[in-house]
Amino acid sequence: MSDVLTQLGEILEERKNAASEKSYVASLHAKGLNKILEKVGEESVEAIIAAKDAEKSGDNSDVIYETADLWFHSLVMLSHLGEKPQTILDELARRFDMSGLEEKAARTNK
Amino acid sequence: MSDVLTQLGEILEERKNAASEKSYVASLHAKGLNKILEKVGEESVEAIIAAKDAEKSGDNSDVIYETADLWFHSLVMLSHLGEKPQTILDELARRFDMSGLEEKAARTNK
Amino acid sequence: MSDVLTQLGEILEERKNAASEKSYVASLHAKGLNKILEKVGEESVEAIIAAKDAEKSGDNSDVIYETADLWFHSLVMLSHLGEKPQTILDELARRFDMSGLEEKAARTNK
Amino acid sequence: MSDVLTQLGEILEERKNAASEKSYVASLHAKGLNKILEKVGEESVEAIIAAKDAEKSGDNSDVIYETADLWFHSLVMLSHLGEKPQTILDELARRFDMSGLEEKAARTNK
Repeated sequence: MSDVLTQLGEILEERKNAASEKSYVASLHAKGLNKILEKVGEESVEAIIAAKDAEKSGDNSDVIYETADLWFHSLVMLSHLGEKPQTILDELARRFDMSGLEEKAARTNK
Repeated sequence: MSDVLTQLGEILEERKNAASEKSYVASLHAKGLNKILEKVGEESVEAIIAAKDAEKSGDNSDVIYETADLWFHSLVMLSHLGEKPQTILDELARRFDMSGLEEKAARTNK
Repeated sequence: MSDVLTQLGEILEERKNAASEKSYVASLHAKGLNKILEKVGEESVEAIIAAKDAEKSGDNSDVIYETADLWFHSLVMLSHLGEKPQTILDELARRFDMSGLEEKAARTNK
Repeated sequence: MSDVLTQLGEILEERKNAASEKSYVASLHAKGLNKILEKVGEESVEAIIAAKDAEKSGDNSDVIYETADLWFHSLVMLSHLGEKPQTILDELARRFDMSGLEEKAARTNK
C-alpha cells in the first residue's frame, strides 16, 4: 500500500524538472502555484458533485476517480512547495497517535 | 508508510459505528453526506489559502496540516459511501501504471 | 444599478434557448447542471486566490473580475433551475429587512 | 432592484466599523481576510450541494438561500479590500455591453 504514495512522490519529483511540453506535472509547475491551486479547487468540487451522484445512483466509480484526482493535485501542490507525500502521512499518523496504537497492539499480542 | 492509511481506514470503520456523541467521525456520519461534503469543501479552501500564505512566508506547516484535514475528510466521505482508502491508492497506481514502472525498474536493474 | 441584473437576467433567458454552438451560456445548459456547478466552484476558487494576491499587491482588478465571473455563473445555475436574479435580491432584502430600513429612513426624514 | 445592492453596500460599510461583538460583519473583518475567504468557499460549496438537491427534489428554496449567502460573503470580501457592490455590476455591464443594448433598444423603439 505504502509503495504507491512513495513511488508517486518519486514520480512527481522527476516530472517537476521534466520538459513542460512532455509532462502534465511539469506544465503545472511551469504555470505556477495559482494554476495548481485552481486544479485542487476544481477537483474538490468534482469529487463533491460525484459524491452527490453516487448517493443517488449507488455507483462510486466517479467519486473514487475524482478523489484520486484531488489527492494527486494536492501532492503536486505540496511538491511545488517542496514537500513530499510522507509529510501528509506523518501528520495523519501524529493526529491519530498511530505509534501509540501500534504499541498498544504490540502489548496486547504479548 | 502504507500502515498509516490502512490503520486510518480501520479506525474510520470502527468510528463509523461509534456513538455520535463520543466520536467526531460518528457525528459526521450521523449528520449525513451533505455535512461531510461541506467539510471536504471547507478543507480544500483552507488548504488553498494556506498554500498562498506558505508561498509568501516559506512556512509550510499550515498547508501540511490543512491537506491532511482534506485527505481525512475525503476518506470519511468515501467511508460514508462504503469505500476504503485502498480504492484511492489503487486508482492512483492504475493511473501511473506503477506495476509497469516496477517492471521497467526490474529490467533496468538486470 | 438594478438595470444591470434585470437585463442580465433577460440576456440569460434568451441565451438559454439559443444554439449551443453560438452561445457560451447555451453550451453550459446543454452540458448540464454538473458542468455549470463545476464552473461555480472554479470561479469561487479563482476569486479566493485573486483576493489573496490583491491582499499582497493592493491591486483589486483580478478579484473584481473573478467575483463577476462567480456571480455570472451562479446566475446561470439559477437560470438552469428556473430562477431569475431577482430571487437573490429578494432574499438579500428580506434578510436585511430593507423595507424596514427604508421605512425608518422615511420617518427620520420627516 | 438596484436599491437592494446599493443599500446592502451601505450597510456593509457601516458595519465594517461597528463593534465586532455586535455585528457579524464586523466580527468577520476583525478575524481578517482568510476567515472571510473561508466563508466564501463554504458558501459556494453549500450552494453547489443545494443545487444538486434541488435537481432531485424540484425545490429551489435552499439553493436561493445559499446563493444569497455566497453573494453576501463575496461582498464582505470586496468591502474588506475597499470595493463596493457597484464594481461587480460595472464589470458585468461592461462584459455584456449593456449600454450598447440599451442604445439598440432605444433605437428600435424610435
